[in-house]
Amino acid sequence: MKIYEFAQAPNPRRVRVFLAEKGINVPYQQVNIGAGENRTPEFLKINPMGGLPVLELDDGTRIAESVAICRYFEGLHPEPNLFGKGALESATVEMWNRRMEFEVLANTAGAFRNTSDFFKGRIPQVKEYGELCRAAALKRLEWLNEELANREFIAGNRFTIADITALIGIDFGRLTGIKILPEQKNLARWHQAVSSRPSAKA
Amino acid sequence: MKIYEFAQAPNPRRVRVFLAEKGINVPYQQVNIGAGENRTPEFLKINPMGGLPVLELDDGTRIAESVAICRYFEGLHPEPNLFGKGALESATVEMWNRRMEFEVLANTAGAFRNTSDFFKGRIPQVKEYGELCRAAALKRLEWLNEELANREFIAGNRFTIADITALIGIDFGRLTGIKILPEQKNLARWHQAVSSRPSAKA
Repeated sequence: MKIYEFAQAPNPRRVRVFLAEKGINVPYQQVNIGAGENRTPEFLKINPMGGLPVLELDDGTRIAESVAICRYFEGLHPEPNLFGKGALESATVEMWNRRMEFEVLANTAGAFRNTSDFFKGRIPQVKEYGELCRAAALKRLEWLNEELANREFIAGNRFTIADITALIGIDFGRLTGIKILPEQKNLARWHQAVSSRPSAKA
Repeated sequence: MKIYEFAQAPNPRRVRVFLAEKGINVPYQQVNIGAGENRTPEFLKINPMGGLPVLELDDGTRIAESVAICRYFEGLHPEPNLFGKGALESATVEMWNRRMEFEVLANTAGAFRNTSDFFKGRIPQVKEYGELCRAAALKRLEWLNEELANREFIAGNRFTIADITALIGIDFGRLTGIKILPEQKNLARWHQAVSSRPSAKA
């Protein structure tokens, strides 16, 4: 078993943090997005979408998509539970994980993809769209700060995959100047707490 | 229990089709996106993101996000299974559902949001970005046609939520001229099969 990944990208980090929370070790093989290694014909046979990470099992089966990889390991190693237990908590975690994905990560990633030099000439960039994503991300941090006034973690009173998605989404914003403001005290408290977990360094 | 939804939008359709496959009836309450009813202060108390659908339980608990609502009902009514069973199948369904969401639905929705008159003056539109989404959606249909050469459904040999997401994503493309081409015979065969299920009319 191994995971193809790129250490600097947010989605591979999501899986690394998840596995660290579970105490699972999987060997990693780096695929350099910066050098276009994820767009070679060889890699497109591994994942036709060109995305990272990709989990490869010993029988050659491949699972792409960070959350799908996390769900695979949740199935094999149910504790500590990170996706919720029972119908209502599972749905709540799914809701928050999706909100963190679409409202936070999609916007910080959209800002980076469309405005950074890293992607210049590599993908078609639409600066105006990137700026909209940036503004949206900042609005979402305001909202998230209010949400966190009355609970410890993103999806409730315990740490779940929604916290991991929020962490990697917010941290990815640094590259485009999207940051938690000093007055966003609830969000800053949460960020300090999740960043202090050993998994955050994975 | 009730579901706030808007009959013409793709994400509410995803939940309706899912519930029809499960044989579950939930009362619906329409919230007209066209009339801006999802942006009123009253509705933003129900879902601060303004999105539809939203499930409201009898105790007032609310679950937003279509896939989260589907997962709630999967937990309550496990059969017919639509999210996969066991670690590997659950991960495979998650991978394909996410691919259909990000590669198909996000692109047909991005094309519609950024180029349609429906959203003119309602959200900031970036036509150039919408055209990129449209081109990307057409490429993804080519890829999906090849994928379906060797299997019956999106995630394998049985119907899952990935088929529902693909169906609503592709059908939503009609509004911006994104269509399955006559030569995409595998995709056309799949589309005919899933559209013929009684749930498709839900």
